[in-house]
This record gives sequence, structure tokens and C-alpha cells, in this order.
Amino acid sequence: MSTPVINQLTIIGVGLIGGSLARALRRANAVTTLVGAGRNADQLAIARKLGVVDRTETDLAKACAGADVVVLAVPLGAMRAVLEQIAPTLSPDTIITDVGSAKGSVVSDAGQIFNGLPARFVPGHPIAGTEQSGVEASFAELFDQRRVILTPEAATDPAAVTTVCQLWEACGAQVMTMAVAHHDAVLAATSHLPHVLAYTLVDSLARQDDSREIFDYAAGGFRDFTRIASSDPQMWHDICAANREPLVAALQHFIRDLEQLTRAIEQADSDAIKQTFERAKQARDAFCNK
Amino acid sequence: MSTPVINQLTIIGVGLIGGSLARALRRANAVTTLVGAGRNADQLAIARKLGVVDRTETDLAKACAGADVVVLAVPLGAMRAVLEQIAPTLSPDTIITDVGSAKGSVVSDAGQIFNGLPARFVPGHPIAGTEQSGVEASFAELFDQRRVILTPEAATDPAAVTTVCQLWEACGAQVMTMAVAHHDAVLAATSHLPHVLAYTLVDSLARQDDSREIFDYAAGGFRDFTRIASSDPQMWHDICAANREPLVAALQHFIRDLEQLTRAIEQADSDAIKQTFERAKQARDAFCNK
Repeated sequence: MSTPVINQLTIIGVGLIGGSLARALRRANAVTTLVGAGRNADQLAIARKLGVVDRTETDLAKACAGADVVVLAVPLGAMRAVLEQIAPTLSPDTIITDVGSAKGSVVSDAGQIFNGLPARFVPGHPIAGTEQSGVEASFAELFDQRRVILTPEAATDPAAVTTVCQLWEACGAQVMTMAVAHHDAVLAATSHLPHVLAYTLVDSLARQDDSREIFDYAAGGFRDFTRIASSDPQMWHDICAANREPLVAALQHFIRDLEQLTRAIEQADSDAIKQTFERAKQARDAFCNK
Repeated sequence: MSTPVINQLTIIGVGLIGGSLARALRRANAVTTLVGAGRNADQLAIARKLGVVDRTETDLAKACAGADVVVLAVPLGAMRAVLEQIAPTLSPDTIITDVGSAKGSVVSDAGQIFNGLPARFVPGHPIAGTEQSGVEASFAELFDQRRVILTPEAATDPAAVTTVCQLWEACGAQVMTMAVAHHDAVLAATSHLPHVLAYTLVDSLARQDDSREIFDYAAGGFRDFTRIASSDPQMWHDICAANREPLVAALQHFIRDLEQLTRAIEQADSDAIKQTFERAKQARDAFCNK
């Protein structure tokens, strides 16, 4: 699709994702004026100093005034409060989208606050990130060849979906749409569950008596496996809270499978152990060679 | 320590670890003649062609004849059979060491086969590897700045321990000693447990109906987290079998902690979730910034 030129785009929350989005949109010359908004004036000052945005506002109503598109890039736990602040003054012509890692909670909050999800609200989720956070860690290439999932409802304005889609494509991403519940189940399995496992493993080891020594002997595999346990705890708390039901279901499924393998190891059931490992290696190699 | 010059060193099993050891010893000029042994003549021919060893043998007794040091670098599942083959003809002057990821099973097997662990048997474990296997994947730098744990018994000949220690140091490794049971518990927690978790996660997702799609949306974090699930299934089966008791204990401990966190998420216990994630991030950051 051709890249639109948006006159004013406001990003609320200029951290790793919001900042990288601003940089990628600028790289694509897709927006005339980029406005960065948020409650942390220091972070906003850094964003302006780094040239990530053209203008900053701590007053969200002012930040959204005149915006063609508003992007909510705050942590999931702050989403509801931000929606409440912008709802009273937001023009119905303004396209709203968000970058939340769980979509059900955002859609539900927006539906309550706006008395039904606005036709120009296009829920979205770029599947990209690093274990870093903050605008200093942002970079224009973050979304290159990454997927962005949009979860519009039946009543969502198709023109708004097209605009949001074009903006993400201008940032180098591949865009697809799916139902909210399906998004949340897939992300629970592929992203939220691994993060919870990594956090649990590191914490479980750290709380053991000989933890210092345990980490001393950990090798490269452990480093990679636990990289995501260095992610922002507050952000991941918010994701776990926002996507509670699908995540708990994924955790319970995983625990059942892990208990089964533990029994196989305990009972020296070589066939079961080897079959599990072989299926996993095959799936993982296929996934990574695509 | 200064590097000894060993006249003949025989490596039984010239795969990733055995091949890398041969390359590292050659880099250090620590051995005059490197003999590669194993049952797979094709692999041995590749090792010779690559210049990894000077001479190869499929007859293990011949391979060990005249060796000052014999290194057992076969998978744990093959260790007992190899010990049985070499025991009848091995000179009591020959130093034996191994590279098995679990030490209890090797010490127990050797004790049974030799009627007590030989005084010159120095059990060892280099904490190094990649998810690759085979001599083609071997490289001289594999052990640079990696740890090697030796688990000698009270009756082990100190001179043999010193020689094995010097050989690993010549390969760039840092060597330390600990008790067999302690080694096996620490490695169960830091290496064997993460591998089982990664295998279980990938297999669990791969067996779900929408697995193809699930992997389509998996992001970079998932790739790192599951890299170790591409490791050799037979090798990891052997490790699980050899280190069964410590690994099952580590798995049960982990499952308890994971169930506790799952309950916290289910009950929206924000404090418990945040505390777990914060402790984990702190421990992980400390571990990786060393």
C-alpha cells in the first residue's frame, strides 16, 4: 500500500515502542507533525532532545487536539486512565489505535468509557520489543519485518483500519487482522507464557540457598533462555493482569505437560522423553528456518 | 599453571565437545599426538580430514594403547559401554577423564566396571556447548573463559587432577572442583531444567491445533527462549536419564513455584506478581553484568 501523509499524529507514551514508532514514521516521512504526550515531563524532554518527536505535551487533551491519529503506547495498566482522560474531548473523526500486548482488556475498557467501542478505534499490537525500555532504547528499525496484529470489530470503520495498516506498513511491519480472543490466546501461549516461565525460573533459583553459586555455573544456554526475565517487571505485571484468563489457561496447560514429562523422567520412560525432545527440536528448527 | 606437553592423548567420541577439545589442545601445542576414536568411521574420517586429530581408531583398545590421557567425550548413554570396552586393557598409569554433563552416573559406572573408581580417573564437565552437534560444528574457542568442573574423589591421584586441570586451562577454561552430588544438583537447576522447560514449551505448543499459526506469531523473545530446544534430543535424553533424581527434584521445585505464581495471576495478586518479576530481573541483571 502507498504511504499516507498524516498531518498530526499524537503518541501517548513515548517509551521503547512509542519512541520507535515515532522514529519509524519519521524515517518513512509518513507524518508532518509528531506530538509526544505523557505524564513524565523528563522522559518527554529526552524524546524532544533526541528528535524523536516535534512537540510534547503533558496535558493529554491538548496533545490530542487536532490529531488525525492518536496512538496509545502506554503500559496496559495505564490504558484505562488514559482513555478516561482523552474521551471527553476527542473528536469522533480522530483515529485511535493502541499497542497493547493484550487486546481484550483494552477493547473492554474503551467500550465502557466511550459507551461502545468507537468506530475509529482500531486495536493493535506490534509483535516487537526488546528487554530494554524507555525512549533512549527506541530505534527506527524495531518494526522492520515484524508482525502487527490489528483486532477491529465488525463495526470498526474500514477506512480507519486501512490508515492504521498503512502506518504500520510504512514502519516496515507486516500487518494482519484477527479476532480479539484469538489474539489473546495466541499471545498468551507464545509470549506471555515464556516470560512467566523465565521470570519464575530465575526467581526460583535466586531464592535458593546456593543461588550465588548456581548463577556462577550457568552457561550460555541459561543466558539466552532467561534474557526475557530482564524485561520491565511493571509492564509484564500489567500484561499478566490484562490477559489473565488466557494466560492462566496456557500456564495450566503447560504445567500438565511438564508434570507428564517429569513423570516420564522419574519412571525412566526413554521413549516418551525422546519423543517429546524430538518433536520439539523438529518444530523449533522448522520455526527458525522459515 | 604452565602447559604440559602430553605425548599421546586419545579422545573417544570426536563430536562437538571432543572435536573442540582436540582443536583447543592443538592451538595450545599441549599434545604431540591426538588420537580420535569412536564407532562411527565416517565421523572419524571427517575429523581426520578436518585436521582435528592426527590418527583415528574404531578399536577402542588400540586407541587407548600408549595414551597418557584418555578423554571420554561420548554421550552419557554410551559411557558405560565404552568404559566396559577399555577397562580390560587400560594401563593403570593412564589418566582418564570424561566430559559428561552429569557426574554421579559416570562415577557409579566406572566404580562398578573397575571395581572402585581408578585413582587416575578424574571426572570432569566443561560447561560449554552449542545447540549444534558433530565434529563439523567443533571449534577451538569453545572453552575460552568457560568453566570446567572436576569432581575428584578423596582417593583420586592429585597428580592426575593437576594434569587434567592444566589441559583444560591450556584450552582457555577456568577449572574448579566440587563434590559429585553438588555438581549434579547445580547443573540440574541451571542447565538440565531449562532444557526440559524449553523442550516442553515447544512441544506443548507444537501439539496444539493452531500450532502452525502460533509459531507464526512468535517473536524474538520466543526464539531466544527456545534456542536450547534445538539441541540434540538423544544427548538430552541421556542427560535426563543419567541425572534423574536431581533433575526430578529441580522440576518438582519449579512446578511448585510456577503453580504459586499461576494462582497469584488467577487471584490478581499484583504484589506477588510484581515481587516475583522484580526479584527475577534483579538476579538476572546481576548475573549478566558480572
